[in-house]
Amino acid sequence: MHRFVPSSFCNTFGPHETVLSIVSGDVVQTSTVDAAGRDSRDELVAERGNPLTGPFFVRDAEPGDTLIVHIRAVRPNRIRGFSSAALAPVAVDSDYVWELERTSRRIDWHIDIDSGTVRQARPVKGNEHLVLPLAPMLGCIGVAPERRQAITSATSGRHGGNMDYRRIGAGMTMMFPVLTNGALLYIGDAHAAQGAGELTGTGIEVSANVELQIELERSVPPEARVLWPRGETADAIFTIGNARPLEQALQHATTEMTRWLRSTYGLSIEAASILIGQACDYDLGNMFDPAYTMVSVMEKRFLPRP
Amino acid sequence: MHRFVPSSFCNTFGPHETVLSIVSGDVVQTSTVDAAGRDSRDELVAERGNPLTGPFFVRDAEPGDTLIVHIRAVRPNRIRGFSSAALAPVAVDSDYVWELERTSRRIDWHIDIDSGTVRQARPVKGNEHLVLPLAPMLGCIGVAPERRQAITSATSGRHGGNMDYRRIGAGMTMMFPVLTNGALLYIGDAHAAQGAGELTGTGIEVSANVELQIELERSVPPEARVLWPRGETADAIFTIGNARPLEQALQHATTEMTRWLRSTYGLSIEAASILIGQACDYDLGNMFDPAYTMVSVMEKRFLPRP
Amino acid sequence: MHRFVPSSFCNTFGPHETVLSIVSGDVVQTSTVDAAGRDSRDELVAERGNPLTGPFFVRDAEPGDTLIVHIRAVRPNRIRGFSSAALAPVAVDSDYVWELERTSRRIDWHIDIDSGTVRQARPVKGNEHLVLPLAPMLGCIGVAPERRQAITSATSGRHGGNMDYRRIGAGMTMMFPVLTNGALLYIGDAHAAQGAGELTGTGIEVSANVELQIELERSVPPEARVLWPRGETADAIFTIGNARPLEQALQHATTEMTRWLRSTYGLSIEAASILIGQACDYDLGNMFDPAYTMVSVMEKRFLPRP
Amino acid sequence: MHRFVPSSFCNTFGPHETVLSIVSGDVVQTSTVDAAGRDSRDELVAERGNPLTGPFFVRDAEPGDTLIVHIRAVRPNRIRGFSSAALAPVAVDSDYVWELERTSRRIDWHIDIDSGTVRQARPVKGNEHLVLPLAPMLGCIGVAPERRQAITSATSGRHGGNMDYRRIGAGMTMMFPVLTNGALLYIGDAHAAQGAGELTGTGIEVSANVELQIELERSVPPEARVLWPRGETADAIFTIGNARPLEQALQHATTEMTRWLRSTYGLSIEAASILIGQACDYDLGNMFDPAYTMVSVMEKRFLPRP
Repeated sequence: MHRFVPSSFCNTFGPHETVLSIVSGDVVQTSTVDAAGRDSRDELVAERGNPLTGPFFVRDAEPGDTLIVHIRAVRPNRIRGFSSAALAPVAVDSDYVWELERTSRRIDWHIDIDSGTVRQARPVKGNEHLVLPLAPMLGCIGVAPERRQAITSATSGRHGGNMDYRRIGAGMTMMFPVLTNGALLYIGDAHAAQGAGELTGTGIEVSANVELQIELERSVPPEARVLWPRGETADAIFTIGNARPLEQALQHATTEMTRWLRSTYGLSIEAASILIGQACDYDLGNMFDPAYTMVSVMEKRFLPRP
Repeated sequence: MHRFVPSSFCNTFGPHETVLSIVSGDVVQTSTVDAAGRDSRDELVAERGNPLTGPFFVRDAEPGDTLIVHIRAVRPNRIRGFSSAALAPVAVDSDYVWELERTSRRIDWHIDIDSGTVRQARPVKGNEHLVLPLAPMLGCIGVAPERRQAITSATSGRHGGNMDYRRIGAGMTMMFPVLTNGALLYIGDAHAAQGAGELTGTGIEVSANVELQIELERSVPPEARVLWPRGETADAIFTIGNARPLEQALQHATTEMTRWLRSTYGLSIEAASILIGQACDYDLGNMFDPAYTMVSVMEKRFLPRP
Repeated sequence: MHRFVPSSFCNTFGPHETVLSIVSGDVVQTSTVDAAGRDSRDELVAERGNPLTGPFFVRDAEPGDTLIVHIRAVRPNRIRGFSSAALAPVAVDSDYVWELERTSRRIDWHIDIDSGTVRQARPVKGNEHLVLPLAPMLGCIGVAPERRQAITSATSGRHGGNMDYRRIGAGMTMMFPVLTNGALLYIGDAHAAQGAGELTGTGIEVSANVELQIELERSVPPEARVLWPRGETADAIFTIGNARPLEQALQHATTEMTRWLRSTYGLSIEAASILIGQACDYDLGNMFDPAYTMVSVMEKRFLPRP
Repeated sequence: MHRFVPSSFCNTFGPHETVLSIVSGDVVQTSTVDAAGRDSRDELVAERGNPLTGPFFVRDAEPGDTLIVHIRAVRPNRIRGFSSAALAPVAVDSDYVWELERTSRRIDWHIDIDSGTVRQARPVKGNEHLVLPLAPMLGCIGVAPERRQAITSATSGRHGGNMDYRRIGAGMTMMFPVLTNGALLYIGDAHAAQGAGELTGTGIEVSANVELQIELERSVPPEARVLWPRGETADAIFTIGNARPLEQALQHATTEMTRWLRSTYGLSIEAASILIGQACDYDLGNMFDPAYTMVSVMEKRFLPRP
């Protein structure tokens, strides 16, 4: 068990200096600051724009391996969250943009861990009775990209990144391709709750305590390699595509789901196609950032044994 | 109560000759043939390509009105359904297309109404244990388009059409803009079950008995008019965008949701934006046809009283 | 030689009543009204929204044939044209829409046939010295679509339609797939000049005299069939894709160019690919309508003999 | 005058160690290796994937400034170029992908500087008589991105990058936003010729000698800042958008053109809109990479004095 208190943060997923070195099987307890760089005491400790905790260097991890991250807990560690108040222009028809607020106010939210709810601190008119279920998640999670790139934590890709997918919280196991030695895992941008798409460009932004268990899968044969981020819960498996436009994100997700069904579940391309055609579901992750996120979801009850 | 047995079918949503004239409040019991034109006895009675039952002429309906369709029942009326066995090229990465089957087999499915399940009649290897819950839906529902257009039932638009959205079944109330005198309602393309996206280009295609109650809302003020199809169930409200690319479909859906929240629920643009940003969900309808379908879903528990 | 004076107009490409019946080889002299329905005397004679002259029924034309239209002349038949003054929201970044005028003024243009120029009648400040070369073109040209559809003249497809491509003027030979008996050719929406994309939603809209020679190519083998509109001038061949998003329009155009190079010029897929990769150019047609237009252009000097 | 012989290369646009420091007004003569890392003697001296010459550090350059690069010469420095022989799947309809070659051969080209032509060394059947005009260009040119990102030279963005625009050759002046101290200019990926779109993923790839004159514009007021790459030749001005999908690239280009017309040429938004609507043209840059490139082109004859 590592207890890691971050003191520096990165704003890109890249080949940065390691903050903690771990081995497969290790558990890490750590924390993330909010998207604006504020910590549990609401103090500004990092540069705004999804500052990341990490990178965690995973010993022996090499390109071609799979990094497995069991998310054991994501818990807001303060009672105030914030969001913006304006839909992104890209969320509406181009001739409806004039109806939107051009500048956005900051909205404060009160997070009640005990009751498991989130409410506006001073509700705008019409939202007085709005009570959201607390559903903590990590907006950012991923590894360093290939070719020693350093990619802003405002976007996402094959390496993960700012995917803003609501199910990436406690109980989810994520899988990433290892693209550089040591994998270099980063996390950040926790939300107390969030609508699909993150269409105001913010969830309910908050700092959080996070507990992860990390595993490494080595010597993965090419057909079984993770090419796009994957997820698994007790009930379902997930593949995540990050790209623009939205259908390309879906194409990546569907391709990766097909690959998974073929390599792990032994399905022919025909059996996989029939299954996806009649039983797959799709969730929307982020549709605000440069790269959008679509998730292919397959319930385990429809799957043969792996 | 009208019991209408169709004897002719249309392959476009357009200004075709009325098959039944009704008034607001009427209930219609009728049936649809499957996407290939076969009826409950598996006899070919219509031209393939989503032949439609209708049009039903709604007396007094004029452009600017809202047509409300309560779907009371959609019940397969035979035990055999069919699907194709190949993912559409547009569903996967462009360099993964070579992995797909270029020509698709027809897969037969057995529909068991009593147990509420659907299984392959002769399962392909790997799908032997696949049991889908029976979830009947209408792939096509809509009205005649504006400007006396006649638009193929292979696609969708502001008028509805081939949206292939899984929740358009019993218990859903649909709302359409009236775009021509009499509205001219059509239905067709029932599925016993279907994955999100209809990514093999077929659900489990079947003929069905359908019961609808139709209402007309007149003298709708401009800001409250339905511009894109809407839906409502006991628990949620829905707005449906039909367009390509996928984000434009989402933009239409979000714009329509925003308009609905403003006009019916009295929210300011700011309150509506905050609500959508933190509480909205999105479903995928069809992503196979020329126009794709995205659905904005808002649970009623998050809404103020209308 | 037919001299046809239109007295009725259609606002859809569809299976409408024939206004003139012709045979392969015939020449037709006729006229088109402007996009707002005004004729050479500036009188309102048709419903606004690209009213079309036609349909011309081509005897013996059947689905699978190719309709060839030699455009011999497009001449504005009045000295006043008009355009709008505002860029379409879809032409700019979504967060730049607020900078645009929400409602557009009408701008009048003076067309000087003798000098071959077009100028604003009362230039807005900054455009005082703007003189455009007169370059008359047909915004709309096409045939009736498949399956007895009637599709608004505000958009485009495989059948042609509102493509707003600047090179569709005198000297261009267009080729369309025959999709219904008699082909049913329509023309309309002439522009005295236009920028690529038609990004204000208008060219310099004008009524015009048009002279066409029509030919029919029958018994076309499947691989040589025209699937998307094609064009030919003295110097180049053109294939036109109409779809949204823009890359799909380009994909249709490139696919059709590849098909043409294979069937008519005898190139292998490899030779066609190399040629397109190193020598093809692309023009933008309409990027304002529901379907966008991209054109693949291959200069004849790079082609082997057909 | 600097004569700089590169001995190390970068595969990302990023904050790498400076290879040469220059001041505004300086001329640099240097060379680039080909996309596969081979130099004028066809020796492998750099890692494949558009290795870049640079970065050149421009003294005093700070974020907000404009970097001006006069391209005085781009000359292939060997007689052999190469391309691939297969269209990218993304260039054609998704159901036409099966027609393409799945693996691509390498095609060798002979570059004849004296006659100004390019031919295949061993022409494939059907391309025997294909002679392309020599038209040397730089596929890659740009600066280090914002936020200390390092972005692969396989793609493009606001910082420039792998735009593969045919007019970026001798006689073109490019303008880039300075996004980091010193600007950090990079060049690479020269082509002897190339079709629009670079649809086989390659131009005719070659090493080249390059001569640039660099200027720095400081204290630029916000409205006059370069937000997306710009170009200027004797006859026209250009704005370049890099994004996916293609219409977003066009939106960036049109927005930047509008900004330029307003700030430098003093046009109102209305005058700029009218001008773009009736006189603008669009060129296609790269449509193979993750980000596509569209270019807005305005001829100077249509512009008022700056």
